[in-house]
Amino acid sequence: MHPLVQRRALLAKRFPETPVLLFNGSERPRNYPGNPYPFRPDSHFLYFCGVLPPGAVVVLDGGEAHLFMEPVTRDEAVWSGPGPDWAELERALQARIHPRMELEAFLDGLGRSRLATLPSQDPAAAAEQSRLLGRRVDLEGDSPDGLLARAVIELRLRHDPAAREELRRVCAVTVQAHLDGMAATRVGGDEAEVLAAMMSACLRQGFGTSFQPIITVSGERLHQPHVGGLLREGDLLLADFGAEAATGWAGDVTNTWPVSGTYTPRQRDVYSVVLEAHRRAAARVQPGARYREVHLEACRATAEGLVDLGLLKGDPEDLVERDAHALFFPHGIGHLMGLDVHDMEDLGDRAGYAPGRTRSTRFGLRWLRLDRDLEEGFAVTIEPGFYWIPELLEDPGRRQAYADCVDWDQVERFREVRGIRIERDYLVTDSGHELLTPGLPDEPEAVEAAVGGRS
Amino acid sequence: MHPLVQRRALLAKRFPETPVLLFNGSERPRNYPGNPYPFRPDSHFLYFCGVLPPGAVVVLDGGEAHLFMEPVTRDEAVWSGPGPDWAELERALQARIHPRMELEAFLDGLGRSRLATLPSQDPAAAAEQSRLLGRRVDLEGDSPDGLLARAVIELRLRHDPAAREELRRVCAVTVQAHLDGMAATRVGGDEAEVLAAMMSACLRQGFGTSFQPIITVSGERLHQPHVGGLLREGDLLLADFGAEAATGWAGDVTNTWPVSGTYTPRQRDVYSVVLEAHRRAAARVQPGARYREVHLEACRATAEGLVDLGLLKGDPEDLVERDAHALFFPHGIGHLMGLDVHDMEDLGDRAGYAPGRTRSTRFGLRWLRLDRDLEEGFAVTIEPGFYWIPELLEDPGRRQAYADCVDWDQVERFREVRGIRIERDYLVTDSGHELLTPGLPDEPEAVEAAVGGRS
Repeated sequence: MHPLVQRRALLAKRFPETPVLLFNGSERPRNYPGNPYPFRPDSHFLYFCGVLPPGAVVVLDGGEAHLFMEPVTRDEAVWSGPGPDWAELERALQARIHPRMELEAFLDGLGRSRLATLPSQDPAAAAEQSRLLGRRVDLEGDSPDGLLARAVIELRLRHDPAAREELRRVCAVTVQAHLDGMAATRVGGDEAEVLAAMMSACLRQGFGTSFQPIITVSGERLHQPHVGGLLREGDLLLADFGAEAATGWAGDVTNTWPVSGTYTPRQRDVYSVVLEAHRRAAARVQPGARYREVHLEACRATAEGLVDLGLLKGDPEDLVERDAHALFFPHGIGHLMGLDVHDMEDLGDRAGYAPGRTRSTRFGLRWLRLDRDLEEGFAVTIEPGFYWIPELLEDPGRRQAYADCVDWDQVERFREVRGIRIERDYLVTDSGHELLTPGLPDEPEAVEAAVGGRS
Repeated sequence: MHPLVQRRALLAKRFPETPVLLFNGSERPRNYPGNPYPFRPDSHFLYFCGVLPPGAVVVLDGGEAHLFMEPVTRDEAVWSGPGPDWAELERALQARIHPRMELEAFLDGLGRSRLATLPSQDPAAAAEQSRLLGRRVDLEGDSPDGLLARAVIELRLRHDPAAREELRRVCAVTVQAHLDGMAATRVGGDEAEVLAAMMSACLRQGFGTSFQPIITVSGERLHQPHVGGLLREGDLLLADFGAEAATGWAGDVTNTWPVSGTYTPRQRDVYSVVLEAHRRAAARVQPGARYREVHLEACRATAEGLVDLGLLKGDPEDLVERDAHALFFPHGIGHLMGLDVHDMEDLGDRAGYAPGRTRSTRFGLRWLRLDRDLEEGFAVTIEPGFYWIPELLEDPGRRQAYADCVDWDQVERFREVRGIRIERDYLVTDSGHELLTPGLPDEPEAVEAAVGGRS
């Protein structure tokens, strides 16, 4: 069965009786309406209907898909071609296609008050959605939209064979981009050159990027869209970069390599701590594992490593209890992956947190985006890190609160490390996990060998 | 004087008494709110205030600039760094900076009903703008916003020295991208490889693109965002691609080269017609020239060339009167350029059409985006073309209407040409014009020499 048709059938089984209305959105103005951002269809629509021209709407009704699309006018055909052939598209998608103008009557036939929907990212589509339904999207509790969200989450969490194939494909391009980025790095060059090499690896294979790349020698700045800094001897370059397939599926990998081709001793020490945290966390990725435990395993490994390096003092278990590791590793160990790089984050924490679980307020846990028991078919990232964030480590309050378990003089000596993160993508399998991003160097020596480093 | 300060002073002179409210917009969700499109500040804001973090608002009041910005919170600083130093920024921009929360009181002090504004492209900013003013943006007639639009248009039309420098810089990168694209072309390759090479030329110098690139062997599809077709012996590749500087300034160039490195005789014949049309139109780019006449000169040159090639029959002047040229060259000869690749198109035709002039309904004129008398400092594109558009040339109505002046059998023989366009950017100077995009091959032999063409 066609994967899209199978997904619709599974939704109809989990969510019978209520017809579902989904929009793929429209092109959104960048600096003027005629110059839009590249069109990115909404992920829920992509999941059930694939890539269609902007403005498409689908009604999923008991396993049947009714697509509503604007016919291409004669004038439009002159400029943009005749568009897809509807009869062919109906066969390919196993869906009925109707002219967009028939949508309202169709919804009246179904009964508008019966419909459920999910939020649209495109403001124009969101407004149209509210108008058609006579209400706003409401994901709270057992509302129709809330129930639909839960059903869609359950489906999208467990990637089907077609989704797994797409994830492997986009991860392979993501890996190639990182290898090309390493090879393009040179002392005296700049971040933009590395970005260009990584983007080129995606574009030449028909891929885009799943989020705004972070390519920076300021790895301690966790959100760092600016690119352009110079690459100097002794710098580490942190590259958090994922490809996106034309079908919408996302990859997400981070590597941190030495610009010169050789880690300094302190950089290598910390890199090894992060790598060990990565390995220990990844080893726990298997069906039944609670993701918060995967996170805490990475926290323990980080604490142990930092005790060995003399930055932390005391029992690693106690240090993690007190969130001392979070001074250097404040974010979560990873997140869901799929059609969105943080999969289904448009639904808030509903996908990331199992029903009944909510975000902790603890310093060391509150930025964890995922706390479910892993199941076969989930795709997750593992991405521990170490960061020398002045706003955390120079904060007098924190210095005092952690006076007994941090050697602040030793911490100061590691300032040059700035930021290190090692991120890979994993698919949970029956027996454990599959690494979706094979082919990357992990060991510091292997990374050094992959880096250009010439000036 | 700082160019931004000078622009504000000039605006205050042209538009005294009325304070002006402008937004730079915010990051707009792509597939979920945490994964936005790359931030692109509104061009009017950029023109007077430069690049600032998302969410900035400016009140221009008698030459003074009051900027309202969100202070970076302690939590935000942990993730993204402390942000720009306001005192430094005040000196650099010669503006007063206030916390964003003080904006409403500040507007009350000025009197909200006195304010004029321009449309925001960001829906969130547009909603906030309406709320603050208690009304929608209204550009009609002599409304405050309409008068402001006219004053801003008059300023932005005539590029000042700083703007010219930016245009030269972004055009140089645009030229490099095209040369790299030609060199990356090979029989058996695909459009995506060429796109990757062109994007890389921009990215590695810290530039983006000013619109979604068109890189296609289907040059007859004038709006063709899809990229990925194979490059075959005998194909022409049409590349319409412009760089965008981090400051927002845009370039816009089109070249059409043979994938194999050699034009076929018919491709070369038509290329030469388009090149001649380009030269004759460009020769008219000078102060005082009416842009519609520049367009019509290209139409006449096209008609003459197509008569010589036997596609059209009759007197070229008459053919242009009857819009016969538009069967093959339906679009306008070009447009304004500046901070937007179609500069100020967010204001509709107000920038492109001089007061009192409106779009023609004629087939051969209605897609002309610009009809002003050119003045020193205007930047415009010149971009004639030839297209074999089935929806135009196979239309029975048109075949009949033009039966006496088109040799339809001869037209059929030129189907292989598909689409050719040659676009360059020009700055109107005192004495004529400056080519903003020097360094590109124009003659067919020069283009052939620049193309890789290896398989």
